Amino acid sequence: MGIITLLTDFGIKDPYVGIMKGVILGLNPNAAVVDLTHRIEPGDITRSAYIILESFSFFPPSTIHVAVVDPGVGTNRRPILVKSRNHFFVGPDNGLFWPIIKADSQVLMVHLTNKKIFPPHISRTFHGRDIFAPVAGHLSLGMDPLKMGEPMENPVSLPDMTPTRKGDTLFGRAMRIDHFGNIITNIRREDLVRFLGSRQMVIRVEKESIEGIKETYADGAKGRLLALFGSTDHLEIAVNSGRADHHLNLDEAHGFPVIAVDRVKP
Amino acid sequence: MGIITLLTDFGIKDPYVGIMKGVILGLNPNAAVVDLTHRIEPGDITRSAYIILESFSFFPPSTIHVAVVDPGVGTNRRPILVKSRNHFFVGPDNGLFWPIIKADSQVLMVHLTNKKIFPPHISRTFHGRDIFAPVAGHLSLGMDPLKMGEPMENPVSLPDMTPTRKGDTLFGRAMRIDHFGNIITNIRREDLVRFLGSRQMVIRVEKESIEGIKETYADGAKGRLLALFGSTDHLEIAVNSGRADHHLNLDEAHGFPVIAVDRVKP
Amino acid sequence: MGIITLLTDFGIKDPYVGIMKGVILGLNPNAAVVDLTHRIEPGDITRSAYIILESFSFFPPSTIHVAVVDPGVGTNRRPILVKSRNHFFVGPDNGLFWPIIKADSQVLMVHLTNKKIFPPHISRTFHGRDIFAPVAGHLSLGMDPLKMGEPMENPVSLPDMTPTRKGDTLFGRAMRIDHFGNIITNIRREDLVRFLGSRQMVIRVEKESIEGIKETYADGAKGRLLALFGSTDHLEIAVNSGRADHHLNLDEAHGFPVIAVDRVKP
Repeated sequence: MGIITLLTDFGIKDPYVGIMKGVILGLNPNAAVVDLTHRIEPGDITRSAYIILESFSFFPPSTIHVAVVDPGVGTNRRPILVKSRNHFFVGPDNGLFWPIIKADSQVLMVHLTNKKIFPPHISRTFHGRDIFAPVAGHLSLGMDPLKMGEPMENPVSLPDMTPTRKGDTLFGRAMRIDHFGNIITNIRREDLVRFLGSRQMVIRVEKESIEGIKETYADGAKGRLLALFGSTDHLEIAVNSGRADHHLNLDEAHGFPVIAVDRVKP
Repeated sequence: MGIITLLTDFGIKDPYVGIMKGVILGLNPNAAVVDLTHRIEPGDITRSAYIILESFSFFPPSTIHVAVVDPGVGTNRRPILVKSRNHFFVGPDNGLFWPIIKADSQVLMVHLTNKKIFPPHISRTFHGRDIFAPVAGHLSLGMDPLKMGEPMENPVSLPDMTPTRKGDTLFGRAMRIDHFGNIITNIRREDLVRFLGSRQMVIRVEKESIEGIKETYADGAKGRLLALFGSTDHLEIAVNSGRADHHLNLDEAHGFPVIAVDRVKP
Repeated sequence: MGIITLLTDFGIKDPYVGIMKGVILGLNPNAAVVDLTHRIEPGDITRSAYIILESFSFFPPSTIHVAVVDPGVGTNRRPILVKSRNHFFVGPDNGLFWPIIKADSQVLMVHLTNKKIFPPHISRTFHGRDIFAPVAGHLSLGMDPLKMGEPMENPVSLPDMTPTRKGDTLFGRAMRIDHFGNIITNIRREDLVRFLGSRQMVIRVEKESIEGIKETYADGAKGRLLALFGSTDHLEIAVNSGRADHHLNLDEAHGFPVIAVDRVKP
């Protein structure tokens, strides 16, 4: 066995994802390869990093998560392997695994330098095929990460995205807009509960405000903005039977718009 | 082994489908998970139900078909398991499996209430991950459906979509438009043959009419509407080297437009 | 085991690809089915043929490559099986496998005529399900290709697409535009090196010209056209942090635009 997930910005029109699976199955015909997504906007490292963070723990221990969002392919950026909480992460050292690394004081990081596990000719443009797929294949067969390269430090980091508090306001961000138009924020349930205590809240996003928290999408008035905790227990802005992104005229090209939560007198 | 199909309205940009596969493989690493489609329009239960009906029998016996088109997620709509013709169907009780249930007097329906097979915390927004994927995983390992909950009756139904006859006209509907722009109707070959007897026919759709039935797409004049029996033996409207939907200015947002078949003197 | 790849123009909205997998798994529950792409433009045989050519060798020996881009489905075009370089290719005889066949003097071609391996009723509109998926399933179980039909000759060919040389210019073509907007040509590294000898080059495409070859995408000036050898060692036109197709106002509907390489004095 061996479960391997793939996250890339390759899209699904080209044969690139299929080719990576061919390389993996050539090494381990019993690997189970699961697509996490290939619809990352080209080069969007930050959103990829947070999708990996929110997804990995739903896979069983020893799963190998390969991520190839790699605008610097072929340059001197390092190919790396990260072991954290009994999961493996394989890809370029460009911040993709920073949220995983930051949260784990026991993390193991390996700079993938052992050329014996790569094909004789490594292209300068497709390390997904020539480096990361072979590493995943060998890992899934039980190879020791420390035989794949050298332990390393100082991985590339991403800007801090944790919510900040100023007085009676918690400032978070819209991290991602999903297929349904729901806006997923970086504000976790436990942090919001601690911040609010026994107080009520008002959420401000763009020029709209939302009072209170619903339990399900269907609890909101049809066509109106609502807030709830989504499936990974992060604050989410949605519209019952509609799209919050259209309602707020937001899309992912806007970056990571501010979501402000005010606590108000009970 | 264990073959599990997935049909959702999740799209393929978000990690939601991959996460469901992670949960399934965590329970049964040998499951073979097949995507039926994730491109259902959000909340389109009726088209999903007919796609399941036309697809399931091409999978081997004991296949588990998971469908998550679930606008009522987190409300009191029931999660259910249906066993019919030696296939299993798992999803919300909102009509998704109605065409399967209606056609089978021997059907078994189970309200999924056994919390031991779900994770300790069930989200209110992602039952695909927290209820339906675990049920599929356990089923694929051979668990008895009757240990997953209580037998139930009165499932949610859908409006009747069978063609109706008035005099010398059979009224059917355009059920679905496929990737090639072909319009798939609810009129089955056997029903049409019985209706026509030895007579000829004219099909009316929007303001166009089509005479007779072709055998293949290539039998029609290029760029002109034609009718044939498609791959599931339903009447289909197509254009050789073109798109019937564009020709007729139809899309799925129109609902289910009427397709009228007149029988005429031989 | 048994690895089977699928390339179709079916898209991913309809259940057609899933149904083919159901048929394959019904015959061989242990088959590993990999999607190469389902986003071929309807009926685009030439681009499909070159995608198969550039992809197949990254899969392990004995892989079965099923391709269904089949505008003549149901007509008298032959269903075929091709064995070349220890890979199998299954699909309609319409040119899809021509680049594979042309390059291999030892190729085996079989006209698939043995009805015992197909279902009792073969539709006229979906041979992917009724002919090619069953053939792939039986092949993956070890069935002898020569028991599936008759050896054949004279497969359908495609127009010659190899680059041509006139004096100091090599004329190639833009074969395909990938998800990143990179333009993949039919000019191979070895052919270009032989053509150039010790000379420099200028590439002309539409009204632009590009001097010299870069090693990686990141080596080019941001927003400017560059040329490099892509992951299959073909000349590729790209833009660092941008899209070459937009820069040149090209899309695949333009056909296969000319790429001219002039060799210039050193």
